[in-house]
Amino acid sequence: MNTYWHVGQLPKGPRDTIADVPGVQVGHCTLSAGAIQTGVTVLRAHGASHYLNKVPAAATVINGFGKSVGLMQIEELGVLETPIALTNTFSVSAVAHAQIRQAIGAHPEIGRSWPTVNPLVFECNDGYLNDIQAFAVTPEHFDQAHAAAAEQFLLGAHGAGRGMSCFGLKGGIGSASRLVTIRTEHSGPQHYTVGALVLSNFGKSHQLTILGERMSPRETPATEPEKGSIIMILATNAPLDARQLHRLSLRAAAGLARMGSNFGHGSGDISLAFSTAYTRNQHDDAQTPVVTMVAEQSLDALFEAAADATEQGILSSLWHAETVTGRDGHVRRSLRETFSDTFR
Amino acid sequence: MNTYWHVGQLPKGPRDTIADVPGVQVGHCTLSAGAIQTGVTVLRAHGASHYLNKVPAAATVINGFGKSVGLMQIEELGVLETPIALTNTFSVSAVAHAQIRQAIGAHPEIGRSWPTVNPLVFECNDGYLNDIQAFAVTPEHFDQAHAAAAEQFLLGAHGAGRGMSCFGLKGGIGSASRLVTIRTEHSGPQHYTVGALVLSNFGKSHQLTILGERMSPRETPATEPEKGSIIMILATNAPLDARQLHRLSLRAAAGLARMGSNFGHGSGDISLAFSTAYTRNQHDDAQTPVVTMVAEQSLDALFEAAADATEQGILSSLWHAETVTGRDGHVRRSLRETFSDTFR
Amino acid sequence: MNTYWHVGQLPKGPRDTIADVPGVQVGHCTLSAGAIQTGVTVLRAHGASHYLNKVPAAATVINGFGKSVGLMQIEELGVLETPIALTNTFSVSAVAHAQIRQAIGAHPEIGRSWPTVNPLVFECNDGYLNDIQAFAVTPEHFDQAHAAAAEQFLLGAHGAGRGMSCFGLKGGIGSASRLVTIRTEHSGPQHYTVGALVLSNFGKSHQLTILGERMSPRETPATEPEKGSIIMILATNAPLDARQLHRLSLRAAAGLARMGSNFGHGSGDISLAFSTAYTRNQHDDAQTPVVTMVAEQSLDALFEAAADATEQGILSSLWHAETVTGRDGHVRRSLRETFSDTFR
Amino acid sequence: MNTYWHVGQLPKGPRDTIADVPGVQVGHCTLSAGAIQTGVTVLRAHGASHYLNKVPAAATVINGFGKSVGLMQIEELGVLETPIALTNTFSVSAVAHAQIRQAIGAHPEIGRSWPTVNPLVFECNDGYLNDIQAFAVTPEHFDQAHAAAAEQFLLGAHGAGRGMSCFGLKGGIGSASRLVTIRTEHSGPQHYTVGALVLSNFGKSHQLTILGERMSPRETPATEPEKGSIIMILATNAPLDARQLHRLSLRAAAGLARMGSNFGHGSGDISLAFSTAYTRNQHDDAQTPVVTMVAEQSLDALFEAAADATEQGILSSLWHAETVTGRDGHVRRSLRETFSDTFR
Repeated sequence: MNTYWHVGQLPKGPRDTIADVPGVQVGHCTLSAGAIQTGVTVLRAHGASHYLNKVPAAATVINGFGKSVGLMQIEELGVLETPIALTNTFSVSAVAHAQIRQAIGAHPEIGRSWPTVNPLVFECNDGYLNDIQAFAVTPEHFDQAHAAAAEQFLLGAHGAGRGMSCFGLKGGIGSASRLVTIRTEHSGPQHYTVGALVLSNFGKSHQLTILGERMSPRETPATEPEKGSIIMILATNAPLDARQLHRLSLRAAAGLARMGSNFGHGSGDISLAFSTAYTRNQHDDAQTPVVTMVAEQSLDALFEAAADATEQGILSSLWHAETVTGRDGHVRRSLRETFSDTFR
Repeated sequence: MNTYWHVGQLPKGPRDTIADVPGVQVGHCTLSAGAIQTGVTVLRAHGASHYLNKVPAAATVINGFGKSVGLMQIEELGVLETPIALTNTFSVSAVAHAQIRQAIGAHPEIGRSWPTVNPLVFECNDGYLNDIQAFAVTPEHFDQAHAAAAEQFLLGAHGAGRGMSCFGLKGGIGSASRLVTIRTEHSGPQHYTVGALVLSNFGKSHQLTILGERMSPRETPATEPEKGSIIMILATNAPLDARQLHRLSLRAAAGLARMGSNFGHGSGDISLAFSTAYTRNQHDDAQTPVVTMVAEQSLDALFEAAADATEQGILSSLWHAETVTGRDGHVRRSLRETFSDTFR
Repeated sequence: MNTYWHVGQLPKGPRDTIADVPGVQVGHCTLSAGAIQTGVTVLRAHGASHYLNKVPAAATVINGFGKSVGLMQIEELGVLETPIALTNTFSVSAVAHAQIRQAIGAHPEIGRSWPTVNPLVFECNDGYLNDIQAFAVTPEHFDQAHAAAAEQFLLGAHGAGRGMSCFGLKGGIGSASRLVTIRTEHSGPQHYTVGALVLSNFGKSHQLTILGERMSPRETPATEPEKGSIIMILATNAPLDARQLHRLSLRAAAGLARMGSNFGHGSGDISLAFSTAYTRNQHDDAQTPVVTMVAEQSLDALFEAAADATEQGILSSLWHAETVTGRDGHVRRSLRETFSDTFR
Repeated sequence: MNTYWHVGQLPKGPRDTIADVPGVQVGHCTLSAGAIQTGVTVLRAHGASHYLNKVPAAATVINGFGKSVGLMQIEELGVLETPIALTNTFSVSAVAHAQIRQAIGAHPEIGRSWPTVNPLVFECNDGYLNDIQAFAVTPEHFDQAHAAAAEQFLLGAHGAGRGMSCFGLKGGIGSASRLVTIRTEHSGPQHYTVGALVLSNFGKSHQLTILGERMSPRETPATEPEKGSIIMILATNAPLDARQLHRLSLRAAAGLARMGSNFGHGSGDISLAFSTAYTRNQHDDAQTPVVTMVAEQSLDALFEAAADATEQGILSSLWHAETVTGRDGHVRRSLRETFSDTFR
């Protein structure tokens, strides 16, 4: 086993990241200095104002031991209206504030003549490596991650992934994509992409499973109750409505389970899926989109892509994350270093 | 107070029933003989096969002390695929069987080369007036109610409403409609109808509230723990997707509350909303509908119509239900008889 | 109609506020200066650390157009672990940060050797009277409201209620309580209290309904799309588990509906119920509480109390709120001033 | 690979079936004659009346393309009040009727002076092997399966499992158990059992995954859209309340995913968990149980047992199911026959 793996039978996209879904961009702001090992990652669904051009979205809370914000309104309205931000648990407030400030900056009518804005911020607890009590993340770090958003972005211990742990190893940001062709009777084949971006911070070392094989780490980190989480973002250019996106988001759980997770008690396991095929305009009701959604009976291929891209995304986070040393000398070693005898 | 009431400020449709929504038809089969006081009511969303032309729908379980069947699949897929049947609690099986049999009769491929069918059957417990243990309803009674479906239908103690009780009085089938105009910036005014059909079987006598006024019945029926339920069906020709229909269905709870209900522990309080604006074809994925849904910010008028039509529908059930004597000499008196001094 | 009203048939407690539930305390920090008309309200379920002694709780999202934080984990775990904070929409971040900071101050192990803390912050949009873009609320304002918590507290335009609007009038903080006696076969009567605290910020002027009567304001405020919300907190000393508390919290919707609400599209209508009968210890699994919950069939009395206390709580907010002038000269007049001819 | 497998690291119970949970019994009624290949399986949580002694329970609908009945009330009340029945999709009505009839037979007050009963019936579509349109199952078949309930029961193509297909092979009834020890600070170790019973009828042949290894069948059955389902019942003697049982039931999804499922669009994937540690009495509110539930932070071991027992249960169904020939000469070959070269 000496190369990087490919999960499942569907082909990957050119980048094998969520940015294979046209329009999606990701940026990081990474804080790395001694006991501060944390950051912010921002994902944009498109290049325009998310408030004006709301993105159809839905989430599944697989295990709700978590402090992410913004999901209640997404469930009610079926859209997200800010970029997606990821950070550490105690920095949700700073990043949510930054989201609001940015939306107001772009649209001074928000909270006056227009409705308020719903900041969407996901989190995992990076407290093993990062001094989370230092509240090191400021609103400006969100701004920097947002400004850095691009189709090319770093994987592993960057942005929100800087301080994360996964299976007792170094986790963080991972990403992958899968290509799907839907054949229908009456129209030609339709080609879609499903991309995943994960923030991996879950799992105990004995659970790690790669392509179905349980790994046995040479050095088992000291036992520690799981206090992790995983955020799994799915993007697709397939036209799906919020109900269908909810169905899609649930399939991330299959990929997660195949990595060895049982959706642990203390793990905030959340997935969110969005579509870039259309947007909902904040104001102009005449422009409510006229879109033909994917037929329900054709969803299976997208479901497979969602599960596989999620599993691949978690692998990606482990594969790319370098060893990091953080607060109190805590170390999370990289997967490749840990299994250097196995993967060559 | 000597005439029939009008709830709220929206105008009613020409019939003031759910059949004001074009295409909707309702039929009853009533069983009334001694201890047998029960029946079946069938509502059709359109005149064609519901299996082939599925109807967008969503439900809200306000209080889930009930035995209705079919809601799980509606929540997942956002469509109903049979007519809507209502009956007594212990006859759900017979009526669900009749629904399956009828679907197979129309489409012998069901359960062979095509998927199975999801029978939708709602129920309330009419055991005070009806000998529910007699299992008097047979599949043929469903067939008869189905065959009787028409735009004109009886209100009160007919069909599934025959044996129902409401606030210690005679309840049963009620219906109402409200007309809504949505004004948008970029297109002309849009005119929609919201209709309600209820099967009322809930409430204790001291709770009865008419247009905000608590009624004091001259004769209080003997105290009895509430073992009732209410089914509230909302139809509209406004184009709404399943998520929006879920939101609409919840507003039935406001109308129910204004009649005096606190959503009692033992009451199965369920609402379902469907749209007749489009259908989803079972097979032809090329015909997935291309529809512009109502803009989210225009839903309030439909919400008001849903709440008001529900409240009016409950009033309608009480107003039209005649006194019925059933098993063991149990009697439920009509509202108008009970309050004959008040309403003249 | 010249006196204050009593909703329903259950007796009220000695204070007719949520503080009739033993142990519950409420404190305000009010900001009132020109365009700044806002604040923070804090409700404590007991006098000890909420993190160490978690309070059984559950919420119902009646309409999820809102930005409150903390509900996801409450749904998963069935407990709250901070005091309950209320503020304006754009100050959620500052107050959530303050909750985290306070929990860490009391327990420096949080986020290190202990799990992180789930801040619970509710919000409504007071942007009509308050310059919400000023982000006037700081973490210190939470600290002040928390320090002020007492059994006696002000109602109306105080704390988080300072800038809120309700039915085009001045809304804000309201509270009420109801006393319930449950009679069982095998034990003596059990006496419980249900209290409500609301933050009212919803409704259009023509909807206002008092004890079932639609009010006709002499001066109708200019039409404005509803951008409100209402937060409804229910406390009880009855022993209920999280599933039962979820059922209880739903009944707030009945009280809300009877005030005239249809759960408007743009209104974040959320209720949360908690019990003070027992707590769940953060660490000591030997002390998992051994409590006999209220029997399911006895819940109706508590449901009635929840609905009535909520309705009374909303009335209370309107009754006590004084006229407030805020940003850009916007004015919300008090109910009593507006209907001075009617109530004397 | 020539022996039967063991999933995970937890030990199995003496029978490695759900009957390792004390009190649980299972019985079958199998119909096998030409085109009729179907049946009924009944699971009893204890030996007494389930109506009088309700069993704490909760379910997770992983994918709701299904027609099972009884879950709505379980979600509201947190208990089941009949044995658990499994059958084919079109026989749900007959079996639900049988459940009602049996409950009335035992308690003639049901539907008269006592509330009605909530029949719990799960289903999968066995239409590939079984002539589902023949409605071959009668209420008497439920009675027979119920009478046959015992701690020893057959696995594979028996009872409801007779006609089921799984990964293009023969599926059906499977079962497994896992033993868990929970260590707490203040009390001694607690020993619990988690058992699983599955009705497997899902999956496409290329998805089949055994202990992480994708199997490549020598003969791939003709492609066919998935119209399957899986029902996963989890039993435990650990004291859990309904909220905790809901959490436990969700973990069945992890076991299901590890077998290769992505929770396919057309698959009704449902899990239900119940506890035998206590019951809720129908009438006697003085006997509401006083039980110390398992502490939340100790649930992980039970979660692992639930996932592993589910995966093992699915393997069990495949391992034990013999080749069956049914309607129109359709054949589902057994796993062991199909992979005879591999497993020896």
